[in-house]
Formats: sequence, C-alpha cells, structure tokens
Amino acid sequence: MGIAEVHQFAKSIIIEAGERIRHSFSEKWKIETKADANDLVTNIDRETEVFFIQKIKEFDPSYKILGEEGMGEKIDSLEGVVWIVDPIDGTMNFIRQHRNFAISVGIYMNGIGKLGYIYDVMRNQMYYAIEGKGAFMNDVPLKPLKPISLDKSIIGVNAVWVTPNKRIEHEPMIELIRKVRGTRSYGSASLEIASVASGRMDAYLSLRLSPWDIAGGAVIANEVGAIASNLVNKPINLLKQDGFIIANPSIHEEIIEHYIKLK
Amino acid sequence: MGIAEVHQFAKSIIIEAGERIRHSFSEKWKIETKADANDLVTNIDRETEVFFIQKIKEFDPSYKILGEEGMGEKIDSLEGVVWIVDPIDGTMNFIRQHRNFAISVGIYMNGIGKLGYIYDVMRNQMYYAIEGKGAFMNDVPLKPLKPISLDKSIIGVNAVWVTPNKRIEHEPMIELIRKVRGTRSYGSASLEIASVASGRMDAYLSLRLSPWDIAGGAVIANEVGAIASNLVNKPINLLKQDGFIIANPSIHEEIIEHYIKLK
Repeated sequence: MGIAEVHQFAKSIIIEAGERIRHSFSEKWKIETKADANDLVTNIDRETEVFFIQKIKEFDPSYKILGEEGMGEKIDSLEGVVWIVDPIDGTMNFIRQHRNFAISVGIYMNGIGKLGYIYDVMRNQMYYAIEGKGAFMNDVPLKPLKPISLDKSIIGVNAVWVTPNKRIEHEPMIELIRKVRGTRSYGSASLEIASVASGRMDAYLSLRLSPWDIAGGAVIANEVGAIASNLVNKPINLLKQDGFIIANPSIHEEIIEHYIKLK
Repeated sequence: MGIAEVHQFAKSIIIEAGERIRHSFSEKWKIETKADANDLVTNIDRETEVFFIQKIKEFDPSYKILGEEGMGEKIDSLEGVVWIVDPIDGTMNFIRQHRNFAISVGIYMNGIGKLGYIYDVMRNQMYYAIEGKGAFMNDVPLKPLKPISLDKSIIGVNAVWVTPNKRIEHEPMIELIRKVRGTRSYGSASLEIASVASGRMDAYLSLRLSPWDIAGGAVIANEVGAIASNLVNKPINLLKQDGFIIANPSIHEEIIEHYIKLK
C-alpha cells in the first residue's frame, strides 16, 4: 500500500466521521430528550463504524476491519492490511459530557503498526503518526519525551484499580499512587494514551483494554519514544483483551517491576 | 454594590487575566526552556493575583481580596464585599499540560455568594452565576440538574482518597467507587465543580480544599440546584481549609451518610 495515500484517505474519513458525530449530536440530542440516551449513542456508534467499513471497503476491498461494534469481519490473524477502529472511545463521556471522547484508528500491515490516529472530536485535535516519520497533533510535530523520575510523574489510572480486584494486587498500586506527583482519570483510553504521547501525562495504565482502545495509540506512542506493553512487559497483542501500560521510557519498567503484581 | 456593574467588571478582568496567562505561556515557555518550570509558573500565578488586586482596588478600594498566593489582605471575617480569587486553579495541569486549569473567583457580600466565576482559560469557556439570576456558560444558561441514582452517577474523586489516609475511612470509599457508574479525576477542583454544575459529572469530592478552590463554584452550584457542603453536610466555611463535596441533590446526602466516615 502507498502509505502517503492511505494516510490522506484515513485522515479525511476520520475527520468526516467526527463531523457526522458532532452533527448527530446537535440534531438528535435536541429532539430525542426522552429517548434512552444509551440507545441513541449505540446507534451513533454503530452508524459511525458502518461509515468506516463502507469507506474503507470502497477504497480497497482487501483491507480487513476490526471494530469495537463488531460490524466488520471476524479477525483471527493480522496478516495483510488490518484497520482497527474504535468509532467512539469513551462512550460514557460521549453520553454524559458531550466531550472527552475520541475516534481511534490503527492501520497495521502484517502486524506492524503503519499509521495511527486519535481524534479528539470536540476539541478538533487530531493526533496521528506515520511509522518512521514521527507523530503529530494537528500537523504540528509532537516532541520526543524527556526523561522524568517517578516521583515527579503524573499517571493516568482509574481509582478502581487501586481497590481490591481480581486482576492485580492493589497494595503495590497504593504505593504507586503515593509515590507519584499526581494521578488523573479521563475516561477515554485513547485520549489518555494521547496525553502520554504529548507529554501531558507520564504513564497510563488499565487492567483490561481491547485492541481498538490501543491500536491507534500504539503507533503514535512508538514515534515519540513512549513504551506500550502489556502489564508483564510483553508486546501488546492486537487479537485479544489484555492489561495495558504506556509510559515515558524512564519509568515504564520501574512501574511494571515494582508496582504491578498480577494475581 | 450594583451587581450588574460588578458582574461586567469581574467578567472583563477575568477574561483579560486569561489573555495575559495565554500570552505569558506562549512567550515565556518558548524562551525559558531551561528555567525551572515551577518558578515560571509561580511568577505567572503571582503576577495574575497582583493584576486582580490592582484592578479590584482601582474599581473600589473598600473591597477585600482573599487570594491563593496571599498577596491580598489577611482576611478574618467575611464582612463587607470580599473577592475570593484563585488566579490559577490546577497548577500541576498548568505546568505539565498547558490546559485543564482555571481562574476561579467568588464575590461575597457579608458572607453571601453574589457572583461566581470559573474560567477554563484554554477552552475559553466562562462559567458564571449571579445570585438569583441563574448560571451560564459563555452566556448560555446552564440547565437545572436532573435527578440521578447513585449507580448511574459519574463522580470526581482522586484515587488517593480511596487509599488508607488520615482523614477518612477508605473502605466506605471503595464501596462508593464500586457502586457508581464511573469515576474521573481532572486535577482542577474548580473545573470539577464546573463539571458537576453543568451535569457532566454528578458529584465531586475532596478531603482538603481551600476557600479559593470553591468560592466561585459554590455560587454557580447554588444556581443550578447542586448542593455544596463540607463532608459532614455543614455549610462551607470560606475562612478555612476543609473537606468539600458538591453533588446532584438526589445523591448528596446518600454519599455523605453512607460512604464518608471521618476519622
């Protein structure tokens, strides 16, 4: 595939999808005040995924599509060109806040991330990366991450992972929370990944994410020198749910080794 | 004092202060890359507070000013007209994110909140309220809050308050985290208060806030029907640090009674 051409195409349909979402919002939200907000959102989510599938298949019918709403094919291998799409990441924010959600798209060739996109729809900010060519926000290059120590770091972690749970020991997480400068939780994995890639946070972790939450962000992370892995420091697997961490390289290993103990 | 006149004045100096901050940002951040970011920020913070003090005293020398940076008078009573000002709420976000911070201003007359402002500087969104006249965001009225049940609520709470601490029992907080639909943490008390007042979150609580973190927000809360109190459901005291909760009226008492146990 011609990367430059695919990039222009991807960027244009993501922006168009964002416009459609903003439009659906302002139209439907007004008239359907009594409708169940969840149904409404599910519809916009699905319509957006169908929009992506149609456009992508028109562009090249050989491309495979893995989407959160499951309207694409069943994918059991990353052979060929695979688009991994989350039409709306941060559904609860979408419903309740009408902001702080994103479209996330990763384009992989034989399992290698070639292009990654996180589009903060309401801020109209498009983070993207082209493998080997750097990462950008609205076409301005993102800077390489500077080293930082853990005690000066801001990390994105939801409060629930600091309470007793089935997946990890919560006591080391409590130590982590106390060690760092501060924590944040925004309710959109892809926007938290974008924050780390942009240097606004130094790490983000979650105990359970799906391929579409991280596929776009992983390409962007790579281009700014952030490290993305699962919680035992193995490469992320885009065919299954798993734990996930993205961090400034100066603290990635320290967090995993000292603070994350899987059960 | 003539409320309409004071409102126009307050709004205009807050917007001017925001412009100055954005300007300082783009100028100083570029040239002082080696300077200590903390010093730089402290300077901008102080300069902004001095700007407020000068403008307010010019407008009416009898007004008293309580500010985070402590450049105003020492205030030990709320008699007369008192401006309670936080020139930059969300300092860590200001330093690291260059977004997600706010100017917060509350104007009180003999202890009664007359005017409240929270200005999200980088989004250019001004939340404000005039006692008895409603609350607004960029001059669009905020809607009265609709009832919500706790299990459908989004609450703002920092992860640290869910871990063992000196102020409250953390086990009931863990139950709260599990009960609600989701939690968020944005790192700026006033913007979290603005989120509750706008219906984007249903509650926000912190174990230790200062008068300038909440003085503006309390006036706005009041106008949309949100309830602001300390953690034992007493009225907030603007002369001291204390715990703080603002919530949708349908869950305010439930959170305090069932989930907050002071030590």
